[in-house]
Amino acid sequence: MMTDRRLLEMAQGKRPVETVFRGAEVLNVFTGEWRREDVAVASGVIVGVGRYTGEEEVDCRGKALVPGFIDAHLHVESSMLTPAALAAEVLPSGTTALIADPHEIANVCGLAGLRYMLDAAYALPLSLFVMLPSCVPATRWEQGGAVLGADALSSLRDAPQVLGLGEVMDFPAVCTGERGILEKLEAFAGRMIDGHAPMLSSGGLQAYRLAGIETDHECSDGEEALEKLRAGFAILVREGSAAHNLHTILSAVRAAGLGTERLAFCTDDKHIEDIRRDGHIRHNIRLAIEMGFPAADAYRMASWNPARLYNLQGYGAIGPGYRADLVLLDDREAVAVHAVYTGGVCRWKAGEPIPCVKGSPIPAALRDTVHVRPAAGRPLGVECLALPVPKGGVLPVIELIPGQINTRRSDQKVPQRDGYFSAGGDFLKAAVLERHHATGRIGLGVVRGLGLRGTAASTVAHDSHNLIVLGDRDEDMLLAVRELERCGGGYTLVRDGRVLATLPLPVAGLMTDRPAHPAVRPFPGAGRSRRA
Amino acid sequence: MMTDRRLLEMAQGKRPVETVFRGAEVLNVFTGEWRREDVAVASGVIVGVGRYTGEEEVDCRGKALVPGFIDAHLHVESSMLTPAALAAEVLPSGTTALIADPHEIANVCGLAGLRYMLDAAYALPLSLFVMLPSCVPATRWEQGGAVLGADALSSLRDAPQVLGLGEVMDFPAVCTGERGILEKLEAFAGRMIDGHAPMLSSGGLQAYRLAGIETDHECSDGEEALEKLRAGFAILVREGSAAHNLHTILSAVRAAGLGTERLAFCTDDKHIEDIRRDGHIRHNIRLAIEMGFPAADAYRMASWNPARLYNLQGYGAIGPGYRADLVLLDDREAVAVHAVYTGGVCRWKAGEPIPCVKGSPIPAALRDTVHVRPAAGRPLGVECLALPVPKGGVLPVIELIPGQINTRRSDQKVPQRDGYFSAGGDFLKAAVLERHHATGRIGLGVVRGLGLRGTAASTVAHDSHNLIVLGDRDEDMLLAVRELERCGGGYTLVRDGRVLATLPLPVAGLMTDRPAHPAVRPFPGAGRSRRA
Repeated sequence: MMTDRRLLEMAQGKRPVETVFRGAEVLNVFTGEWRREDVAVASGVIVGVGRYTGEEEVDCRGKALVPGFIDAHLHVESSMLTPAALAAEVLPSGTTALIADPHEIANVCGLAGLRYMLDAAYALPLSLFVMLPSCVPATRWEQGGAVLGADALSSLRDAPQVLGLGEVMDFPAVCTGERGILEKLEAFAGRMIDGHAPMLSSGGLQAYRLAGIETDHECSDGEEALEKLRAGFAILVREGSAAHNLHTILSAVRAAGLGTERLAFCTDDKHIEDIRRDGHIRHNIRLAIEMGFPAADAYRMASWNPARLYNLQGYGAIGPGYRADLVLLDDREAVAVHAVYTGGVCRWKAGEPIPCVKGSPIPAALRDTVHVRPAAGRPLGVECLALPVPKGGVLPVIELIPGQINTRRSDQKVPQRDGYFSAGGDFLKAAVLERHHATGRIGLGVVRGLGLRGTAASTVAHDSHNLIVLGDRDEDMLLAVRELERCGGGYTLVRDGRVLATLPLPVAGLMTDRPAHPAVRPFPGAGRSRRA
Repeated sequence: MMTDRRLLEMAQGKRPVETVFRGAEVLNVFTGEWRREDVAVASGVIVGVGRYTGEEEVDCRGKALVPGFIDAHLHVESSMLTPAALAAEVLPSGTTALIADPHEIANVCGLAGLRYMLDAAYALPLSLFVMLPSCVPATRWEQGGAVLGADALSSLRDAPQVLGLGEVMDFPAVCTGERGILEKLEAFAGRMIDGHAPMLSSGGLQAYRLAGIETDHECSDGEEALEKLRAGFAILVREGSAAHNLHTILSAVRAAGLGTERLAFCTDDKHIEDIRRDGHIRHNIRLAIEMGFPAADAYRMASWNPARLYNLQGYGAIGPGYRADLVLLDDREAVAVHAVYTGGVCRWKAGEPIPCVKGSPIPAALRDTVHVRPAAGRPLGVECLALPVPKGGVLPVIELIPGQINTRRSDQKVPQRDGYFSAGGDFLKAAVLERHHATGRIGLGVVRGLGLRGTAASTVAHDSHNLIVLGDRDEDMLLAVRELERCGGGYTLVRDGRVLATLPLPVAGLMTDRPAHPAVRPFPGAGRSRRA
């Protein structure tokens, strides 16, 4: 396509192009300049930047034009939406490419889950790239849905959308040189390999980098970010729903007087309500500009930097030969999105509702993933949830720490009846039911500090995604399990023998098969200037 | 190798490494900082940067340590040395990797020439990468030694040392979309493609970039460099023997307030006497520092920038997982080289003579490339050099312009005898004898302004490398041709029936098969501080 004679003539102004974006302040990511130019587009590609005429002309005077935003690392499943439904949500705030690690669906459905994500990529109005999940299973302490070794991953390595190996979370195994993970690293030598190593430092960090890991998105501390940059990692600056690392990382980088070339934005896990409120990668850009970073650098962290890091040819710039993935802005400092184009086609304009994106078919295997019946064939009864208390009445308790995602173990005297734990006070029973292979395995424990009355259950339970139930009555817990079995997974709330509410997530027990509820205005500030 | 458990243990300080470079100011190319660190090396690779102990320790206190220098674009043949002999010349000034376009030898020997260069790469103490020449033949006006179409080039595309397609000099053919060149561009889509487009601008430049060209090394004008940067080209900043573009380009980049991330150093064509006087890429670095660029940026243009541009994994940085290609400096501002390491092995130390590098065998076909006998089998006689002068006595004359490499055509009255041109005054006869296929083709003309008395001949005649002779007596010209036939090509000087001097270049008529004459001190400043 690049060597199409017709396009070469258009680039030279010898024939009109299809679409001209006329007179915007165009971000030149190569130099960091804003320059008033025309951008000429044909066949989905930018054929030239300069002075052009076209069959269609988009008047961009008074506006800014930047390359589409790239999320350098996310889990689509965290949105609880299919790729198509998520695409619809993120496009209006300017995201035009996603680099996804389908770690969650792979831990439930294995290769079938990965193939679904790869197939889904083809029909989308944005680009979906895949990093193959390196940690399936995610842990050896829990039964997951699948095991993907180096051979299984290699079978998909050369698929067109695959960029490399997804976040290598098991950094202790890397450092000690465990065979399974080293085989995966070798299978992807020369390809991109993402990291995930919270607080790893010194020799361990050097070893992790030596093993071929190229990125990290787990920096929650400024010094940590600087050490990782210095060790040669590119840092994915995460601003998600739970993890907010942007301010910490960018503050440290600025204080050390470093450039932003080795930084790229990501969300990792971001929920729909947050995307609707703040936009997607747009939010990272806006925060960086609010911190005082030059807008050009902020936009480059959302386009050129991730595109170069992941070697996405034809992505991340407004220049000849690059894809016409473009964001037209009413106000570049406020990241006020006016319109979003991918492959030269307008996908959303200010004032429009969230676009309708048709998804690819969902294979039957992905809809049948909740199997909690015991292997012996006995029906699941409340007796399966009975948790005996030893003499002395003390059990290990999972204690929640307010405002933290970490928990703490403490051995405490727990309430009991007839030698069995009985929820009460602030103590709840926790049960994790293996739900992939109907092994009948059930883990039981005690949780304190949640403040819940009633029962909550979910098949979204990182990272093995078994069925987890927390409750104050065994009967309600059993009912919650049956409810999730019935609807193919999701979230449910039960009290006093009644299902209060259920969010069905029938795709792998992780994602809904429906679009998110449409909203007229996707996020505040979309399509209008914050200065206006 | 990266996932070798022994190396992972070394990185964590759990076992001593092979070599520790202790206490240098180490350039961190990722952040642009100079930090006092130990660099730990084993199996030719940097396993960690921090605090280490090793079996061997190199005391680097008071010195600086930087990544080995990369020449982003050169023609080995321009040194008239084989790759091994050139490696010996460039190592002492810190060059540890060459990205070569064997355009010259390919225009003489075709695939055999390319295979020789690729084979030569294996045995060298530095890294030799190859960009496959895109313009063989270089022109349609002259008979070259070979024709390499897209298919022929594709046959070598996946060789380990091949990075992509060499400088696409025929930019008019790209812009008009000629089939032959588009086929080559398509064959290398997704790989690196070098450009060569002096003074190309506006729509033509946009089209050239659209066609997939990634670099340019022909900027002789500041505005030209800025326009090319803005169009998305990376600029190879050339400082060679004939072309001196560094000051122009860097001045323009600085005046425009741009960064240096998209710049990489190259020499293109650099002769041995210049390398011995100034060093190789070292000279580019020194000039940039003298202009006031931060030393970190100057060294990055010689290491990290070209390594990233050409996607040379494991090159261009001092960090875990990178090759131990290191330059130890007595003075980083003066680029005073103390020692040079590749793969962790010391290749040269201050005070040593130029190292001895054993070359790979030279195939017989490359030694038999001068064939000027006419196809009809008649011996070459002076009558072949007779140049008739038409009525009126006027011939087109190639006129030299003092201080320029360009020439000018002018139609002038020329000296003659018996209706034939007769050299005299400032007029010389020029003959180009097809020397590849013994077609007997001879081009004759008149040159003015050279100031030569006698005859000079060469088989180095860009870019088709036929045998070119300039002289004032046909008999001497014939003798010069026979002398070059005898020695397999090179340069020769003849006067009054005597060969005055000959430089034999028996490898393709372009390169000597011997090392350059050894010198005790490779270049001034090597191994000593300019400040001292």
